[in-house]
Amino acid sequence: MPASDLFTDRRHRAARLLRNAGLDLLLVGPSPSFRYFTGCHSVASERFAAFLLDSSEQASLFVPRLQAPLYENAGLEIRTWNEEEAPLARLAGEFSARDIHRVAVNDEFWAGFLVGLTAAAPRWEFVSDGAVTARLRMCKEPDEIAGLRAAARRIDAVWARVCAAPEGIAGETELTLRSRIETFMRDEGFTEIPWIDVGAGANGASPLHHGSTHVIVRGEPVVCDFAGLHNGWFADICRVAVAGPPDPEYLRVYETVRAAQEAAFRAVRPGVPAEEIDRVGRALINGRGYGAFFTHRIGHGIGLAPHEEPYIVEGNTTALRPGMVFSNEPGIYVPGRWGARIEDIIAVTEDGAERLNTASRDLASLN
Amino acid sequence: MPASDLFTDRRHRAARLLRNAGLDLLLVGPSPSFRYFTGCHSVASERFAAFLLDSSEQASLFVPRLQAPLYENAGLEIRTWNEEEAPLARLAGEFSARDIHRVAVNDEFWAGFLVGLTAAAPRWEFVSDGAVTARLRMCKEPDEIAGLRAAARRIDAVWARVCAAPEGIAGETELTLRSRIETFMRDEGFTEIPWIDVGAGANGASPLHHGSTHVIVRGEPVVCDFAGLHNGWFADICRVAVAGPPDPEYLRVYETVRAAQEAAFRAVRPGVPAEEIDRVGRALINGRGYGAFFTHRIGHGIGLAPHEEPYIVEGNTTALRPGMVFSNEPGIYVPGRWGARIEDIIAVTEDGAERLNTASRDLASLN
Repeated sequence: MPASDLFTDRRHRAARLLRNAGLDLLLVGPSPSFRYFTGCHSVASERFAAFLLDSSEQASLFVPRLQAPLYENAGLEIRTWNEEEAPLARLAGEFSARDIHRVAVNDEFWAGFLVGLTAAAPRWEFVSDGAVTARLRMCKEPDEIAGLRAAARRIDAVWARVCAAPEGIAGETELTLRSRIETFMRDEGFTEIPWIDVGAGANGASPLHHGSTHVIVRGEPVVCDFAGLHNGWFADICRVAVAGPPDPEYLRVYETVRAAQEAAFRAVRPGVPAEEIDRVGRALINGRGYGAFFTHRIGHGIGLAPHEEPYIVEGNTTALRPGMVFSNEPGIYVPGRWGARIEDIIAVTEDGAERLNTASRDLASLN
Repeated sequence: MPASDLFTDRRHRAARLLRNAGLDLLLVGPSPSFRYFTGCHSVASERFAAFLLDSSEQASLFVPRLQAPLYENAGLEIRTWNEEEAPLARLAGEFSARDIHRVAVNDEFWAGFLVGLTAAAPRWEFVSDGAVTARLRMCKEPDEIAGLRAAARRIDAVWARVCAAPEGIAGETELTLRSRIETFMRDEGFTEIPWIDVGAGANGASPLHHGSTHVIVRGEPVVCDFAGLHNGWFADICRVAVAGPPDPEYLRVYETVRAAQEAAFRAVRPGVPAEEIDRVGRALINGRGYGAFFTHRIGHGIGLAPHEEPYIVEGNTTALRPGMVFSNEPGIYVPGRWGARIEDIIAVTEDGAERLNTASRDLASLN
């Protein structure tokens, strides 16, 4: 559908969810949800800016006067405040004639503004917008999945270039390899890069190791996890490379992770609770004796944000639905020795799941 | 002083301010203030992480288990939560035995967590941490000013390279010039780049125009504003370039901005209210008939964040003190025609102010 209809439709569905949840107003600061409802990118700052939608479907923007030109293509009513004004009092004043009680705010909304609004509009009760925004964003339309698939293919291409780089990895530092990945990512069209984590040997046993001056030696597995924004959608991948043969025990660890990832993938279909996917992957790793070393959830949703609902974690009983897109990334981390993780983004289909990443899941053997 | 003493000293001073303000606990999520108190960089995400300091000076970190290795050099007690746990209930539980009532949170703390904590710890009242954190961060120590000065010199070097680039600007698009600036910034060691705004001709009349495919023509003033993080400190600059002679009226506009910036600079000294600096610059622009076109505050503090206290704006009566560092950036924006802004970062000294940027403030005449 045309872009303007897309955003109107999203706002229409959000207003219905507001009414269903007994909410009067949705207040969304600069964030991926702001982009979801307006089509406009916006960066959070000390200058208060928000998208507002009430339960009768009236939508508007309330932004600093000097930001107004950035939003003029949104097709929304724009109210502005001037630099010397107190925006939160202005906002509360504009809504004082309306019967506003329960206000949903996005998770990333700044607490400083929430504290200020609590003073300016003492009758407003603030709640999470999860029942509205996360619920809508969680299920992607076919066009959105196409965008995520295209982004995944580009990050696969980055990994292919890492594997093909004639310099290899032995003798390089983690940070050099990280820079190489960043160069390939920018070259493939990634505009925001929230993380590039490179951990060799024992450093790979910390799932979020960002990289160091450690020099990669032969036989040492190198965990590479990187994510980026491509044409409005996030991609995310994790693969492991090694120069020369690794320890035979590492091969068993790696194959365990690979089998867990495959088992989790096969468990995905509509109706299954999110936590069940985590349990399936974890059960396989537990069964091979490595359960204590799988220290994180198996996955996270992805879309306009690199991490979003649904989180694939014990305790999340949300039933999977077609169009949900999330990572499938079991791992094993043995302190002092090594780490292994394999991550693909997958989309729930009518009867199972599609892998959006298609890069080989083999342990990459490099120079 | 050694780094560990630096952070201990900051926490000591913060605890005293907590007591003075009748606050029981400071709760700081990933943000520049988190770095200020711990020395550790941290990125806000759906996984709750916080630095905690109580009024008796007990400091600790409460972070996801898998992030713990990122903070092990902070020299702080680290408590962790596991992926399947509810961290906010855990946090409230850990503090339930203590007499906590008033909790200060950093402005950027996520509202989703604040809403969750309000449910988990209903006796806690949340307030802004401005009386503690902003107050401490606002006045820089000599070492900190040295870091800001070094960052300013590097961004001056970027502007020098823009001016020296043999390609010139006429015939280039705004986005090409933006990319050129980005390349120079990365080359000069800037690791985070929150904005690069390039606006030619009428686009320059929007103070935050990010750049477009508009092709720069001769005689058209191009407003270039860019900021970046260099070795832990932010730099920020705005200059204007033009290929060939601009309209004579533009020269009058530019000279008005320059005179306003100079007048504001000369007004800076300890004891003067922040708003007075804005008034001095604005009075000069008003006096020459362009007052309606100066649509933003004259400046913002800068340090670990690109925008921070003190804001130099009407209504801010904070008295300037030695060590405060902020931008001085008056502008004139005539819709449909052009924009002019000149920005330097300045530090308040014992008897006046020092410009940290020293790039020429002349209108840059390029090819």
